[in-house]
Amino acid sequence: MIMASIYGNNIKISIFGQSHSEAIGVVMDGIPAGIKIDVQQLQAFLERRAPGRSALASQRMESDVPEFVSGLIDGVTCGAPLCAVMRNTDVRSEDYLKIRDVPRPGHADYTAFVKYNGNNDHRGGGHLSGRLTAPLCIAGGICLQILEQKGIEIGAHIAEIAGVSDEAFHPVNVCSDTLKAVKNKDFPTLCDETGNIMKAVILSAKNDGDSVGGIVACAVIGVPAGLGDPIFDGVENRIANIVFGIPAVRGIEFGNGFASTLLRGSANNDALYAEHGAVKMRSNNHGGILGGMTSGMPLLFRVAVKPTPSIAQAQESVRLRSDGGAGFTADRAEIKVSGRHDPCIVPRVVPCVEAAAAIAILDMMI
Amino acid sequence: MIMASIYGNNIKISIFGQSHSEAIGVVMDGIPAGIKIDVQQLQAFLERRAPGRSALASQRMESDVPEFVSGLIDGVTCGAPLCAVMRNTDVRSEDYLKIRDVPRPGHADYTAFVKYNGNNDHRGGGHLSGRLTAPLCIAGGICLQILEQKGIEIGAHIAEIAGVSDEAFHPVNVCSDTLKAVKNKDFPTLCDETGNIMKAVILSAKNDGDSVGGIVACAVIGVPAGLGDPIFDGVENRIANIVFGIPAVRGIEFGNGFASTLLRGSANNDALYAEHGAVKMRSNNHGGILGGMTSGMPLLFRVAVKPTPSIAQAQESVRLRSDGGAGFTADRAEIKVSGRHDPCIVPRVVPCVEAAAAIAILDMMI
Amino acid sequence: MIMASIYGNNIKISIFGQSHSEAIGVVMDGIPAGIKIDVQQLQAFLERRAPGRSALASQRMESDVPEFVSGLIDGVTCGAPLCAVMRNTDVRSEDYLKIRDVPRPGHADYTAFVKYNGNNDHRGGGHLSGRLTAPLCIAGGICLQILEQKGIEIGAHIAEIAGVSDEAFHPVNVCSDTLKAVKNKDFPTLCDETGNIMKAVILSAKNDGDSVGGIVACAVIGVPAGLGDPIFDGVENRIANIVFGIPAVRGIEFGNGFASTLLRGSANNDALYAEHGAVKMRSNNHGGILGGMTSGMPLLFRVAVKPTPSIAQAQESVRLRSDGGAGFTADRAEIKVSGRHDPCIVPRVVPCVEAAAAIAILDMMI
Amino acid sequence: MIMASIYGNNIKISIFGQSHSEAIGVVMDGIPAGIKIDVQQLQAFLERRAPGRSALASQRMESDVPEFVSGLIDGVTCGAPLCAVMRNTDVRSEDYLKIRDVPRPGHADYTAFVKYNGNNDHRGGGHLSGRLTAPLCIAGGICLQILEQKGIEIGAHIAEIAGVSDEAFHPVNVCSDTLKAVKNKDFPTLCDETGNIMKAVILSAKNDGDSVGGIVACAVIGVPAGLGDPIFDGVENRIANIVFGIPAVRGIEFGNGFASTLLRGSANNDALYAEHGAVKMRSNNHGGILGGMTSGMPLLFRVAVKPTPSIAQAQESVRLRSDGGAGFTADRAEIKVSGRHDPCIVPRVVPCVEAAAAIAILDMMI
Repeated sequence: MIMASIYGNNIKISIFGQSHSEAIGVVMDGIPAGIKIDVQQLQAFLERRAPGRSALASQRMESDVPEFVSGLIDGVTCGAPLCAVMRNTDVRSEDYLKIRDVPRPGHADYTAFVKYNGNNDHRGGGHLSGRLTAPLCIAGGICLQILEQKGIEIGAHIAEIAGVSDEAFHPVNVCSDTLKAVKNKDFPTLCDETGNIMKAVILSAKNDGDSVGGIVACAVIGVPAGLGDPIFDGVENRIANIVFGIPAVRGIEFGNGFASTLLRGSANNDALYAEHGAVKMRSNNHGGILGGMTSGMPLLFRVAVKPTPSIAQAQESVRLRSDGGAGFTADRAEIKVSGRHDPCIVPRVVPCVEAAAAIAILDMMI
Repeated sequence: MIMASIYGNNIKISIFGQSHSEAIGVVMDGIPAGIKIDVQQLQAFLERRAPGRSALASQRMESDVPEFVSGLIDGVTCGAPLCAVMRNTDVRSEDYLKIRDVPRPGHADYTAFVKYNGNNDHRGGGHLSGRLTAPLCIAGGICLQILEQKGIEIGAHIAEIAGVSDEAFHPVNVCSDTLKAVKNKDFPTLCDETGNIMKAVILSAKNDGDSVGGIVACAVIGVPAGLGDPIFDGVENRIANIVFGIPAVRGIEFGNGFASTLLRGSANNDALYAEHGAVKMRSNNHGGILGGMTSGMPLLFRVAVKPTPSIAQAQESVRLRSDGGAGFTADRAEIKVSGRHDPCIVPRVVPCVEAAAAIAILDMMI
Repeated sequence: MIMASIYGNNIKISIFGQSHSEAIGVVMDGIPAGIKIDVQQLQAFLERRAPGRSALASQRMESDVPEFVSGLIDGVTCGAPLCAVMRNTDVRSEDYLKIRDVPRPGHADYTAFVKYNGNNDHRGGGHLSGRLTAPLCIAGGICLQILEQKGIEIGAHIAEIAGVSDEAFHPVNVCSDTLKAVKNKDFPTLCDETGNIMKAVILSAKNDGDSVGGIVACAVIGVPAGLGDPIFDGVENRIANIVFGIPAVRGIEFGNGFASTLLRGSANNDALYAEHGAVKMRSNNHGGILGGMTSGMPLLFRVAVKPTPSIAQAQESVRLRSDGGAGFTADRAEIKVSGRHDPCIVPRVVPCVEAAAAIAILDMMI
Repeated sequence: MIMASIYGNNIKISIFGQSHSEAIGVVMDGIPAGIKIDVQQLQAFLERRAPGRSALASQRMESDVPEFVSGLIDGVTCGAPLCAVMRNTDVRSEDYLKIRDVPRPGHADYTAFVKYNGNNDHRGGGHLSGRLTAPLCIAGGICLQILEQKGIEIGAHIAEIAGVSDEAFHPVNVCSDTLKAVKNKDFPTLCDETGNIMKAVILSAKNDGDSVGGIVACAVIGVPAGLGDPIFDGVENRIANIVFGIPAVRGIEFGNGFASTLLRGSANNDALYAEHGAVKMRSNNHGGILGGMTSGMPLLFRVAVKPTPSIAQAQESVRLRSDGGAGFTADRAEIKVSGRHDPCIVPRVVPCVEAAAAIAILDMMI
């Protein structure tokens, strides 16, 4: 039960709230003093994650405007912990009353019931809801702005939906223009045509009362060489540690990742060369990380996102009954998740991955 | 530079040493008192990782016998931190003298040079060497014994070498016998015939002065439901955090991982059912983890291991020259890594993955 | 800048807010699920710390009622982090405008100016204000309730004001009745007559535009033997670590503390004896802690609180002027702190010390 | 059982070993690369703590020469964790056999027995022995050298033995010469005559088979303003956290500490003034720390050390008998501690306090 919702060595991010509690939010401890936060830019970033924006996403409407109750004076950090609070308003807890004791397959309902002995907030997934990525994005959005001032840029795109693949970032030459262009799209793919096919795939699943998953690819450019630490505190360790905090993430790979296992060393190694006295590499299979430390090449990683477990179809489950003590019994049950759900969470995971990367990288630089 | 070589919330593992330093070792803080450690069983476990055992592995011969200088009295833990020291004996640092300033492609030589401003121990990869997985295995081997006493068993196998796939653990029914059988093999694959093909692939690469990579699959059985914590301290976060501490790991996936992105939610969700009042699941795509917490089903994950970067072929690199200050310049150079290297590190990674999983899981249980 | 406002190994307390920010508050991560919190009892505890209650304290009037925006469902913890937010209402920032650049002697104004390069919130001491003990008391008040359910009770009293000494807790026999009785007093001394003398001393200082300090003594009963850990994580280390988080604390001693240095070992050692097979001690010079671990005897410690630095008298100071870069220059200045201040903070520190002890001890037990 | 023997945010110190184990030692993680360690100077520092040097100290003779098995190449740090191992040689475990089940009053024998259910290493106090301050001094001695390169100096002296007081450091003007002079003395007091009286007091106690305690005062000069963090991570919190890791410490106070409670605010506040544009203070009651952050004035603190609990006189105790389960029973017993003990530990605590301060301060600066 330790540090469950806290991340970071230098910047500490403490996330609180449940899907249907009074509010959700985040405390950020360790942001340097004297930094101007562009609240409007932050809000634009949060919009990318917010629900209710399109037919492809949940119809829950949240204003998703954080109130900074501490740490900011006239938009400038004062060195004290930042706390942002975001009220939950469009809550329909009654959707969850009837399924209180029937865990939704693919969700954390059952594991949370066991862990918290039935005391967990089951409404909308409680503390384990995807809604908790909103405070992650508040923290990440702030880190993104600070990194930008240091010449570091982060961008992600939808690399795959249900097997339909977008183009990939160029591993060596991915540049600021590319990252900016894809981020400003409503449906962030490099190739718009592929994006349209993906949208059709998502709508088709939606029409079937079903859902699909996909892969998000992320690039970080401008990172100096030598960040990160050996063994347990390498760049991969830290990014993986925070990225698995995004619900529905099932895998992560750096550089050419799992595909590297198909290459021989001679093909997988990235040759070094000198250009005007500086060190560069001819290829970037290593994804900008060697021995847990950044190489100065673009940092690249990919994240697997499973299909949304909430689907409209009937599913087999159980009805849990507390036995009065610490245990419980279970009977056969069927469940149909009504509520308002995303047929595909991948587009909304894109900014979350950027946020997570930003927090991890800024944490290493301070 | 924080906590670089330290892992854990409850059990703290602090790893020290370099490939060619006087010794390597580990301090374990937090192991409960009164636990009998079977030193012979630990040694057998360490043998599985040790070099010099076959034509497929590095010919460096290390006795790899840890001396416990503290924390154990007559083989029983006394509550004080355990410290195990392992002397480096078969060291041939001269192999590294001539490549001191020429970073090996695919290795951490360049990133460590930048980070430590050229003061890093370059001999054999220094602190970033695969040799540092020996202390990881000491710690992990002890955790494995403690977990076994709690009815938890961990086993891994070579799932893939250069695209050649072994059979997979049965995601629902994987049992103790299977884990024990595969662990006792010299070349741990479920299917021996496939194992022989893999060996041939490795030897062929070796003959070409080249190397290959692969995938390690790991199963943990007997884990109770409800372990792990939400958001940043889930089971995936913690296992990923330690597994990326093993050199050459480039990716990790839980359950059906990246393959989950090809399924619809209705196919990917694992239906729950009641059997004699207990909750079970009909399938195990979720790999035993939902919302960061264990479900009581077998815990399953897979790890991508890149081809060994040390190869005998000539490669393009640079010669680094410190400029007297904090910077350096670089000239064109060529490198041929002689030394004694593994044409494929995957078989030796297998026990390391078991060790890492054991530490992560015991850390969550104490 | 690490973990500045975060405490705890198992229960993580993250405090946010400034004296004059929108709100102050606390996030508690790690409180077990299923615990009933008595909000009325918590409010009564917070009242003991709140300002504006008597002529002896600051006249700032704050309602000091926390809103729990997460973690509680119908007054019962659900396992998710608790977040309590407390609005700042009776704020008079104009009092601080004229002294913005003139650090108040004895306050953190100067050190914060240097650390945060003038960006710190200077109003009312910002994040370093005594007001931040309110969220500490929210967290502590909750821990006190949980400890009470485990049979552990904590009580503190004013042991000294400006050299005037109260009676002491009986080191061996201090009991629940004594703790309860002193806690319910408006002015918590064991001896009321001494309390009246102390009050007179405080009022006399107030009339002179001056202030006084004192000592708070704290007892914890019902603690089982064997809590705490060796070396850096002993009971003293942990309690000291949190108690120095209360502004104005300048020293701490356990058991007979500094007075132990006047005794010989034969007099200072506490003899052990057996009573009905149980181990007890004839005296309690060790204050319930030996080798960093609890002995089962009452846990006793004393805390030195300096006189409130805010006084109405004119004091010599400087006027700071940023030099545009990271530095500044200083000129001679005089300061008279108007605002609303406590002539003696000690009575309000009493519940803060109880809160701090409760957090430290519960953190060790979970 | 968390982080028991680990300290630090940026530099992690992990201490291992027991009084009579094969070896004791320390792992330091986070020391920057490229720092030259003067091993001879380190050895001279360790000599100040070592036993067997005078009639006033334990007659146990240990060479106390650390072997650096990792992290150092030709005396220069390479960025990898430093591990220093020190063999225990002059061990007489038989002294402890007969008192195995009879806890020594004033020692941690009883609390450790309860905590570790009788599995703890009882020989010479095990992991809780004062001998474990040797690795603390190795780490601290290295930090002292690094701080010296940054212009920061630390010195401590015996401020009191059994009520006999030495002169005090000048709180404003304490200088390098004073610190150096007192450190080089065999018996580190500012006034040698007082030192002679103290020695007589110690010998008199020794002749009676008894022991005495005292106070150590420490000064740190050259510390820049603005170090340390608010609330839980202030300079006091961090120094207290590590200083209570030295056995026998019962209290700590900063600046005028407990004596501040006797002053009015007007007398206790330290006036600020400008000199050539820089900020200074006319007095230093605050001991160089305000609001948890350094002020640039000398950092001053005092540490209470209880009389050595090991005395030659007969004392009342109990004989513990495990009941086979997790409990035990106790009978009346008498104990006479033979072994080799210090009649006064204070002189040997002096370098330990310097070491602890050095680690805490360097940890804040990196």
